[in-house]
Parts: sequence; C-alpha cells; structure tokens
Amino acid sequence: MSEMKYKCIGFDADDTLWENENYFRETEQQFAQLVKPYCKKNAAIESLLNIEIDNLKDYGYGVKGFVLSMIEAAIQVSEGKVSNEVILEIIELGKAFLNKPVVLLDGIETVLEKLYNKGYLLIMATKGDLLDQERKLAKSGLSKYFHHIEVMSDKKEENYEKLLCHLEIESRDLLMVGNSLKSDILPVVNLGGSAVHIPYHTTWVHENVELDKSITNYWELESISQLIAHLQL
Amino acid sequence: MSEMKYKCIGFDADDTLWENENYFRETEQQFAQLVKPYCKKNAAIESLLNIEIDNLKDYGYGVKGFVLSMIEAAIQVSEGKVSNEVILEIIELGKAFLNKPVVLLDGIETVLEKLYNKGYLLIMATKGDLLDQERKLAKSGLSKYFHHIEVMSDKKEENYEKLLCHLEIESRDLLMVGNSLKSDILPVVNLGGSAVHIPYHTTWVHENVELDKSITNYWELESISQLIAHLQL
Repeated sequence: MSEMKYKCIGFDADDTLWENENYFRETEQQFAQLVKPYCKKNAAIESLLNIEIDNLKDYGYGVKGFVLSMIEAAIQVSEGKVSNEVILEIIELGKAFLNKPVVLLDGIETVLEKLYNKGYLLIMATKGDLLDQERKLAKSGLSKYFHHIEVMSDKKEENYEKLLCHLEIESRDLLMVGNSLKSDILPVVNLGGSAVHIPYHTTWVHENVELDKSITNYWELESISQLIAHLQL
Repeated sequence: MSEMKYKCIGFDADDTLWENENYFRETEQQFAQLVKPYCKKNAAIESLLNIEIDNLKDYGYGVKGFVLSMIEAAIQVSEGKVSNEVILEIIELGKAFLNKPVVLLDGIETVLEKLYNKGYLLIMATKGDLLDQERKLAKSGLSKYFHHIEVMSDKKEENYEKLLCHLEIESRDLLMVGNSLKSDILPVVNLGGSAVHIPYHTTWVHENVELDKSITNYWELESISQLIAHLQL
C-alpha cells in the first residue's frame, strides 16, 4: 500500500478512541443488582436488552434512551412493584454515566498525531447523544486532530453517503476505523470505501453481525497502534 | 436593504418552521394531570421546570431529557409515592411526543421556496435530540431547501462561531431567523451577524431574556411571510 492511499481517515469514537461499552456493561450490572429483589440477574438483563432494541426507533442511540429503557425494564421485571427509590437510583446511574471520565485506549493519541502530521484529513464519526459525544470529545483532548466531527443518528450506508457528500470526499478516498463490523465496517465497504476493524473486548450484542468472507477492502487489526504499520508510514 | 445583502439565511426549526413548544406545554399539562393525586397542578409544573433546568447540564435539550425530568419530578412531588403505572404513562407520553406529526407554521414553505429560488444559501440550525430533529425534518418535507442542517447541543456564540467556520461563512453574511431571543438572535448579533425575531405564541420560560435596546442588526416580524417584504424581494 503506497503512502496516502487514502485522503481521509474516519474514526469511530466509543470503544475505538475511548472506553465506553464497559460503562454500559457496568451500568447493566448495577441495574441488575437494583432489581435483584424482583428478578434474577440474567432475566433482568435480557428484559433490558429487548426493551432497548424495541426503543431504538423512538430514542435512537445514547445514554438517555438507555436510562429510559432501564426504568421501563425495572417496572417490567418487578411486575409494577419496583420502588420509587430504585427508579431514582437508575436515574442517578444515568447521570453518573454521563459524567464518567474519558479513558483513551492505548496508543490513540500517538497514532492520531502521526496521521495528522502526515497530512491525512481526520474525521470522527459516532452515534449517540449529541451533548454527550461533544462533552466526551472535549474531555478527551483529541479535538485538535479532527477536521470534522459528525454525531450521527445511525451509521448506515445512507448516513455515510451524506457525510461523504457533505465533506466532498469520494468513498474510495476514505478509510474508516472502528470496532463495530455493523456500524463502522460494512456500510463503508459497501459504499466502495475501505475499513479497518479493531475489535474491542466487548461489543453490544445488537452490534454483532456476520461478515461475508468475499468482502475485500477491509482488514482486522488487534490494536490502533498497528494502523501506522498497516498504512506503511 | 439591497437584494442579497446576506449570502446565508439560517432558520431555527422548533417554533420557527414547525410547531413544537405547544407539544411541551400539552405534555406538561398531561403530566400535571397524572400527578394530580399527589400535588397541585402549579406545584407539579414548577417542580418539573426546576428539575429540567437543573438537568440541562447532564441531558442537554430535547424530549428524552424532558421525559427523564418528568419521572424525577413525579417522584419528587409525590414524595416517593407515585405508582409504577403513572411512571409508565409518563414514558408513553414521551414516546407519543416523539411520534407527533410535524405541523408547519403558516407560509413557511412558500417563503423557503422563494428564498431558495433567489439563490440564498439556506441552513437549519436547531437544538434538541439528533434523531428527533432529523425525523422531524424528514416528516416536514422541507429538507430539499436546506444546504446544511446543524443539530447543535446549545446555541451560544461559540456554537454559532463553529458553524460559521465550518460553512466558511462570515458572520456579516448571515441572517438568522428564529423565535428565541436567547438562542437565535442574541448570539448571532453579538457575533456581528443579523437576525430576525419572529415570536411564537409560547416560549419556554428558560428561553426568556431581556434585549438590550442598543442592539441593531435585529428586527422583529410578526410572521415568516413578512420576511420576503423585509428582504425587499
């Protein structure tokens, strides 16, 4: 691969730049603990997951929708018996989540700095609540590397198409880096772009997909630090 | 004012293009009705307002945060006695809100079409939940007129500065049109842009501000239809 094969490198944010999914898992465990008097742990988490997926069409992605789904799940698994106290605790879990520190993944800043200095146009493309994502970016100290930040309501082909059109970038000039095959890799390669998949140790089950073995223009790396070697920089 | 004094005309969305605040007021009334067994109407709405403002720093603007605040307020005004049934009804109020039809304000489409055909660069700049605003725009049928849509976490000077920088537009080339003095008018005129205030019949109390009489580059119109005459088109 020659240098500057791509003009633009897009990065997913949650679990690609910084830790996030573990906060969801942690909060789910705390939720299960709170509703333990009413229901077994696995049943509580399963009920929450079903409600979350069902609510995606109304709430979209992000912490606020997750909290509303936890409240609904608490009422469901307790058969309408959960106390006001527990509901308030769920609301507090949500506020604590929104105020968690941003923990960068290993090697991120070194890689971004190198790519930035090499002249790549770097963009961040993420799902979630707008204010929450902006706040995390500000806390991360990484905004100086990004030409453009896009918080997207979803990461399907049409969302990437709009973004590329807006940035006046051809899909063949984009390399997208992310941890979700479904949201970061598949839509981009389907549009004719390239993608690097860096799995995170935990993925929300709703993001799991099987990848067609015939897909090219896509590589799997173990860590972000390998991106530099992959690009032969 | 000569023709094309501005290159770019920005429109707020909620209560400038379509009805919105009345849905909040309506939902507040339904909330007050639901907690009526525990608390007087005015006290319920006052408690909700205080909680909403307090939660803005965590949730930002939009319906999902509003629903979370209603749940918190229901627990507060009932002194921890509100039933699970009422909490579920509040969650349902939120989902119904998110699925309300989009009702355009009178004359909007005619005005946008005329400005678009005259060659103005039209943008929409709004606060709220990302998915919700995108959904409303899609339902409105107005997206064809807009060069750019910006859902902002807040509408302060720095947010407008970023937007102008991103669009490569000078503040003197922008005319912003909106119903909120605080969010649509003041930050824009402070940056050296111009603004047209079109009051809506109801404004969230948190958006109310007093305007310094010395401010120029700002006009008040009664309806969007007067914008055409104002621009001498």
